[in-house]
Amino acid sequence: MASELPFKLNNKDIFRDNCLVNGEWVEAQSKKRFDVVDPGTGKIWATAPDNGPEDVDKTVEAAQAAFESYRKVNSRTRAQWLLKWDALIREHRDDIAKIVTYETGKPIAESQGELDYALGFTWWFAGEAERIQGTISTPAAPGRRVFTIKQPIGVAVALTPWNFPIAMILRKAGAALAAGCTMIVKPSPETPFSVLTLAYLALQAGFPPGVFNVLTTSLDNTPSLSEALCRHELVKKVTFTGSTRVGKLVAKICSDGLKKVTLELGGNCPFLIFEDADLEQAANGQACITANRVYVQKSIYEDFSKLIVQKTKGLVMGHGSEQKTTLGPVTTSRGLDKAESQVKDAVSNGGKLLLGNGQRTKDVGGYFFEPAIIGDANRDMLIANEETFAPVLALFPFDTEEEAVQRANDTSMGLASYYFTKNVDRTWRLFENLEAGMLGINTGNSSAAESPFGGIKESGYGKESGKDVAVNDAINSNSNFVFT
Amino acid sequence: MASELPFKLNNKDIFRDNCLVNGEWVEAQSKKRFDVVDPGTGKIWATAPDNGPEDVDKTVEAAQAAFESYRKVNSRTRAQWLLKWDALIREHRDDIAKIVTYETGKPIAESQGELDYALGFTWWFAGEAERIQGTISTPAAPGRRVFTIKQPIGVAVALTPWNFPIAMILRKAGAALAAGCTMIVKPSPETPFSVLTLAYLALQAGFPPGVFNVLTTSLDNTPSLSEALCRHELVKKVTFTGSTRVGKLVAKICSDGLKKVTLELGGNCPFLIFEDADLEQAANGQACITANRVYVQKSIYEDFSKLIVQKTKGLVMGHGSEQKTTLGPVTTSRGLDKAESQVKDAVSNGGKLLLGNGQRTKDVGGYFFEPAIIGDANRDMLIANEETFAPVLALFPFDTEEEAVQRANDTSMGLASYYFTKNVDRTWRLFENLEAGMLGINTGNSSAAESPFGGIKESGYGKESGKDVAVNDAINSNSNFVFT
Amino acid sequence: MASELPFKLNNKDIFRDNCLVNGEWVEAQSKKRFDVVDPGTGKIWATAPDNGPEDVDKTVEAAQAAFESYRKVNSRTRAQWLLKWDALIREHRDDIAKIVTYETGKPIAESQGELDYALGFTWWFAGEAERIQGTISTPAAPGRRVFTIKQPIGVAVALTPWNFPIAMILRKAGAALAAGCTMIVKPSPETPFSVLTLAYLALQAGFPPGVFNVLTTSLDNTPSLSEALCRHELVKKVTFTGSTRVGKLVAKICSDGLKKVTLELGGNCPFLIFEDADLEQAANGQACITANRVYVQKSIYEDFSKLIVQKTKGLVMGHGSEQKTTLGPVTTSRGLDKAESQVKDAVSNGGKLLLGNGQRTKDVGGYFFEPAIIGDANRDMLIANEETFAPVLALFPFDTEEEAVQRANDTSMGLASYYFTKNVDRTWRLFENLEAGMLGINTGNSSAAESPFGGIKESGYGKESGKDVAVNDAINSNSNFVFT
Amino acid sequence: MASELPFKLNNKDIFRDNCLVNGEWVEAQSKKRFDVVDPGTGKIWATAPDNGPEDVDKTVEAAQAAFESYRKVNSRTRAQWLLKWDALIREHRDDIAKIVTYETGKPIAESQGELDYALGFTWWFAGEAERIQGTISTPAAPGRRVFTIKQPIGVAVALTPWNFPIAMILRKAGAALAAGCTMIVKPSPETPFSVLTLAYLALQAGFPPGVFNVLTTSLDNTPSLSEALCRHELVKKVTFTGSTRVGKLVAKICSDGLKKVTLELGGNCPFLIFEDADLEQAANGQACITANRVYVQKSIYEDFSKLIVQKTKGLVMGHGSEQKTTLGPVTTSRGLDKAESQVKDAVSNGGKLLLGNGQRTKDVGGYFFEPAIIGDANRDMLIANEETFAPVLALFPFDTEEEAVQRANDTSMGLASYYFTKNVDRTWRLFENLEAGMLGINTGNSSAAESPFGGIKESGYGKESGKDVAVNDAINSNSNFVFT
Repeated sequence: MASELPFKLNNKDIFRDNCLVNGEWVEAQSKKRFDVVDPGTGKIWATAPDNGPEDVDKTVEAAQAAFESYRKVNSRTRAQWLLKWDALIREHRDDIAKIVTYETGKPIAESQGELDYALGFTWWFAGEAERIQGTISTPAAPGRRVFTIKQPIGVAVALTPWNFPIAMILRKAGAALAAGCTMIVKPSPETPFSVLTLAYLALQAGFPPGVFNVLTTSLDNTPSLSEALCRHELVKKVTFTGSTRVGKLVAKICSDGLKKVTLELGGNCPFLIFEDADLEQAANGQACITANRVYVQKSIYEDFSKLIVQKTKGLVMGHGSEQKTTLGPVTTSRGLDKAESQVKDAVSNGGKLLLGNGQRTKDVGGYFFEPAIIGDANRDMLIANEETFAPVLALFPFDTEEEAVQRANDTSMGLASYYFTKNVDRTWRLFENLEAGMLGINTGNSSAAESPFGGIKESGYGKESGKDVAVNDAINSNSNFVFT
Repeated sequence: MASELPFKLNNKDIFRDNCLVNGEWVEAQSKKRFDVVDPGTGKIWATAPDNGPEDVDKTVEAAQAAFESYRKVNSRTRAQWLLKWDALIREHRDDIAKIVTYETGKPIAESQGELDYALGFTWWFAGEAERIQGTISTPAAPGRRVFTIKQPIGVAVALTPWNFPIAMILRKAGAALAAGCTMIVKPSPETPFSVLTLAYLALQAGFPPGVFNVLTTSLDNTPSLSEALCRHELVKKVTFTGSTRVGKLVAKICSDGLKKVTLELGGNCPFLIFEDADLEQAANGQACITANRVYVQKSIYEDFSKLIVQKTKGLVMGHGSEQKTTLGPVTTSRGLDKAESQVKDAVSNGGKLLLGNGQRTKDVGGYFFEPAIIGDANRDMLIANEETFAPVLALFPFDTEEEAVQRANDTSMGLASYYFTKNVDRTWRLFENLEAGMLGINTGNSSAAESPFGGIKESGYGKESGKDVAVNDAINSNSNFVFT
Repeated sequence: MASELPFKLNNKDIFRDNCLVNGEWVEAQSKKRFDVVDPGTGKIWATAPDNGPEDVDKTVEAAQAAFESYRKVNSRTRAQWLLKWDALIREHRDDIAKIVTYETGKPIAESQGELDYALGFTWWFAGEAERIQGTISTPAAPGRRVFTIKQPIGVAVALTPWNFPIAMILRKAGAALAAGCTMIVKPSPETPFSVLTLAYLALQAGFPPGVFNVLTTSLDNTPSLSEALCRHELVKKVTFTGSTRVGKLVAKICSDGLKKVTLELGGNCPFLIFEDADLEQAANGQACITANRVYVQKSIYEDFSKLIVQKTKGLVMGHGSEQKTTLGPVTTSRGLDKAESQVKDAVSNGGKLLLGNGQRTKDVGGYFFEPAIIGDANRDMLIANEETFAPVLALFPFDTEEEAVQRANDTSMGLASYYFTKNVDRTWRLFENLEAGMLGINTGNSSAAESPFGGIKESGYGKESGKDVAVNDAINSNSNFVFT
Repeated sequence: MASELPFKLNNKDIFRDNCLVNGEWVEAQSKKRFDVVDPGTGKIWATAPDNGPEDVDKTVEAAQAAFESYRKVNSRTRAQWLLKWDALIREHRDDIAKIVTYETGKPIAESQGELDYALGFTWWFAGEAERIQGTISTPAAPGRRVFTIKQPIGVAVALTPWNFPIAMILRKAGAALAAGCTMIVKPSPETPFSVLTLAYLALQAGFPPGVFNVLTTSLDNTPSLSEALCRHELVKKVTFTGSTRVGKLVAKICSDGLKKVTLELGGNCPFLIFEDADLEQAANGQACITANRVYVQKSIYEDFSKLIVQKTKGLVMGHGSEQKTTLGPVTTSRGLDKAESQVKDAVSNGGKLLLGNGQRTKDVGGYFFEPAIIGDANRDMLIANEETFAPVLALFPFDTEEEAVQRANDTSMGLASYYFTKNVDRTWRLFENLEAGMLGINTGNSSAAESPFGGIKESGYGKESGKDVAVNDAINSNSNFVFT
């Protein structure tokens, strides 16, 4: 199989096109497979097992059997396996990055950047594994002591999207495996192979069979397979990253079994640029790739829009595998449809197209979209309320800080917000007034393994990294009384 | 109204028969009221507003308006209000206990005991309010600092049962008010007045209008009112104590709005008595009032069953308001039905009735049930699998520790387990092998404000007391990056 | 005795002129007494027992005997006593403030302010008492559990100065009593009566005899009494606030017995005013009372020195007991000598006297010093290197941030530093570059019970307030292994 | 040099006989060297630089210069260097163990065991480095936030003994290097080469020059060199392990400079064997090597003494480098003198010699002592009050638990205590009643990197391992206020 790949790997063994269940590489029971497309060419380049609900039982039972012994493995051993996994992934970083690029379209440098970011999680959780502590205290009732200990909850299921196929998995699996849980991952249909490389290396790292399992599936089978996983009696925890709509569904299904759920949902995160910001600092890193809603104070609106248009013009669009590419295709053709309709809607609502034509690039094979910047954006536009996974950025002028805060908060979401200012008083005010699970202050990037990751409001609940909190999310706390 | 009460209060003002919404004492919009019955006589002794879904909007909006300012109240002030509330409830302890007895049937000493236990929560959370801390750390990415701060989530709703009408409320409200949330309580139809005394005293203590609100309702309206509360857009957190069946429903309804949910569900908690236990210590405190499933090692089975029969015989059944009463009625007539059918089922499955006739006491007006002890109980009996809220206790003989653990864990529930042994090795083994959120070791009582309260498996999720954890449950954690 | 006081108290009982040892009010064994002078008039107004080394044994033994039972008192009871003590001190705030004013010369509003600040400690430590927790963890060695518990260390001795006679005691005693230690306080010879009011109220609050003891002494006997306390075999902890010179001596004496020592030593704390500061904010609160070394950026040096001269001119000098007084006398005549020599030295080293004549006020009886502001100060002046307890402020012009930081850090001390700037980048830089145990950012006040108090470098070690850290300072941590 | 070694190394490069200062291998300024003796033969086998006070300045200045940049190295990089160090030491474990055996006389398996134990520290502190967090809180004063951050204190000095030459260093250096401090180690004159292997590997691991430095010295120069290190103005922290007598001296010298001191001092740790213990478990591991004071309940005294005599007889005395050896020589000839006088004193005080003749082995070259067991020991014997570093064990019969506790606590020391019982009530009682920094319960070994290490009473202060506490010991905590 690997011999037909459209790219060359240093170590061909890491490319796996069957699933890992209980330490074995298996087909779906139905033997069906689904196609995976390169967004940079629009061509199918590999196929993966199309698992369905009938594949769930065997997998969960294997994960449960593995859990019974894995939970008793000393936490130092768990830490050592995590660290070995970390080392192996690090060793194969460039190979894995190539696969990510052919699955998602990302420029290769971005794929490598994702790997570097993602390795923060394996590294971090290796250190967390041995630091799970309980407490002893003396209650007011005489003659007693209270002991609180922490125990792993059981089999965890991870349902993940295509935008960060490696980082999502390592974040979720790092916490679960550190805590003593076993895991079943169902990756997005776009990105089965990147997670299968991780599975291969987890086995090499020493994790016993059944501790880390992967079930790939097609877009069609995703709902039924996911529901079967969420409903299985032996699954105790579900961690989902994706849309708010599906997140609610996952929560609902899990309510029947009273399973613990962690949800990392939609963002549509605002950027706020104040007149006392360092504009160069504000423009870097958000060049139309990551930010959609950018609120700019009127006194600097002209300067800032010129700067951002100029920076965006400097991007080089192309196939992600080419070194010079700094802007790849979007990952799915659905993404092109949405981006076109957002730009069209913005213009019809009074927006000015400062850059681009608002349309997909014609006749190029892949899913390319010409970067678009919309000026004079307002709250009636779709783009003010929806996430975009395409190079479309909207600039919203504002007058006062109060107005900016009000508009940034005017959404049911609350994943992250970003603001740029040099004034210390404003820094504190926004710190407390912006409604978001994460804030970036003079930076467009607010995530790392060392700090809690997670949104508020309809962006979900639960935390997936950071000191103590993420492993606790995969854990039961028991409290115990002693009377002597 | 208070002049017609069947008992005398030191301070008549604390008896309230209207609801508290936004600092005002109000009727239901429908003006309807429902009856409250004394389980010790079977007679109606008062009526309370029968609120419905149409009463929700106004209440939630008031709680949200109050939240906007209450969240900014300094935590020391919140602590002082909690402590003042604590002092006022303490001052009116005996009056409130009387009301609890007329609502639930509990002997007056038990009602007073509940008050003493419940006051642990107001006292404890007063100290927690000022100890909510965030963190600062330095991530691996250069030039950054990560700040994590904690903010109150918003309006919280408490749905509570009748078995501990005061303690449940103070546990839930203590955490929420300490954290800076506002709260709406919907008490059980059996116990509206006890929670209304707390509402009255909260106002006296200085909590601003809208911070603590109560909506009473009848059994019929409970589902629709509860659902309307859970679905309201401005409600951010629901904390429920009750049956597993209803808990799942609450979780499902809340999934639509992605609301945070804490569930304290059913128990049916096992007691394990080993041959190396102090039998007197083991028999005390569980005399058929609190324990249903008691597993006794065969070598001491005879001795222990004699001891427990003898202790149970010593109980004095009567109206809870009489000083000599040590066993009151059950709270609802449904409780009598269930107890009778459980005993009947047990006997038909091979159980021996060691005490009692397994039936309600005839012709006494109130909901009295003669205490029953079932010997030679086995896993096929209903009582091995269902909670009982009546004086029915079943003794299950066992041979080995492994067998005892297996049978104790053989339930979908996991609230609490209790074991009695003097051997230190066994103590550690059971400490880790019993599946329960709380363990009592050589004690039949495993709850205090200072330690986390909550079950695992189908007994729910979330923690409602203890250092840090309970206030955290009412809180969003935000993480924030600084780039300089 | 109290009938001869030069002021009137609401409750004469709180004025005590004998010492409290083991719950009894006692003279020194020698029967000697020493005089206490009102710095506002220079007249003796009361006398106190002049204890010597021979008074130590009995006191320490009483404290040790009390410790044996106090350590086992439930932490909730300790919390309740602390809270009752807090309430009683609060009730007598104005009476105690009067005594402080007659001991130290402080304006009455400042004395009351000290009481308010000091009550933060009793309040805070009441909450800390019940939150002392140990930990349970699972080590890498198989079959083990590690338990860490915390136990009170034993008898603690507090040696305190005159500048904050109430706050120092409540900070030290609050932590010790919360942790389960007993305490012996040796107050400064200037301020015996304020601490004796606290002792009286501690007894009223319910603390058992021997838990809180006070030994007053004269300036002459201070070294020998202090040394005897530090050397006593049963004393396990010494907490000292005072000069660096004496602090080193205390540490040296305690080294023989390997006693734990907390030292809060000299300050001479710098203020840094940057050109982007809010000058009004910067000038408030440091009006020559609290700050000695003020570094001002040259571009705003003129404006700021005018502002501070003008604000200082507005102060009203007088006896502290008069309501209109905003500047009292210094506490000791030694303070006058030092202040005169510092100003003289400053002028001879190129300083300009922008306000005052640099001398004590003649012929007024009390220890008054005309407020002095020295412009163009430089590092060769005594005032750049010594603490001052008189209204003398020196303004040091600077050019760059680097220079300001270098000069602020150019001292062996490291208690606190203060800076005023509105730029967020500078805020972070200084946050990490200034060498001090405490930093005030846009505030001249950086202390509260809720945050750790303590210096670095030669300003001492140990922390005396804050969550967890202060009680931990009065505690042994034991770690314990279990092998099953 | 290495070519003349009396043993063979896999990697000769790790044997270093010059000191490491600022990344360079240097002689003492005096060029003097001192001899190192093999305790198994009594022969000199190598020499090391005999540094004196004149060598201190250059070394401390280098460590301070290194500190200025090392403190700013990202904590992840510090963690990676620690982990690389850990891997390199692990790789050279057997070589280093050989050196330890030739320095200390330990059987090679014990030396390897020390390496395995010691590597727990490098591994552990790699994880600690990135987990140093500060806090943010909101104080009662309005408009403020309190930030507490933690910063490394500066140059740390480690003064270590010969009994665990590798473990002591890795424990002290692990914490310091994780926290961001630089370190100067002065090893014991018996064990210079084992620490120099660590220094060599620290350089290989990537630690910059000056971060880890070693100054070896002779017994004669030890006091003057140590004092010069403790007095140097740039040294901020001293961590000492050794005798209580010298520990007090270190504390006294450090008091002049107000340096932070951690002291791990003498032990003479008691073992308590109760009649309900598992005797086999109790006898294992303490076979006269590690325990001196063993308290045995009278009802099992006969059985236990037979068991321990029999187990001790099974030991094979010989040169540590021989595989079959299970009992090596003592490390110094002073140790022989002390052991002989202790046994003689015990017998003259009524002790029975149950095993051995109480004397050194004659005419064998090395420092061998025939294992001795003293029965019927009592409190008047020297061995009841002094540490022994030779195979001498004393059995003290006792009647009751109270008596055992009283005698175990009847010492000025408080490093560790050990007890063996199967009763859970007794377990809790002793847990709280024994006065020791560490307790072993049914185990004779109570130390691991994951738990705090340190004594109470005259066994010192400060903690040297465990989660958070050890790195905190090498750190200043700064608290900072923000007013907006």
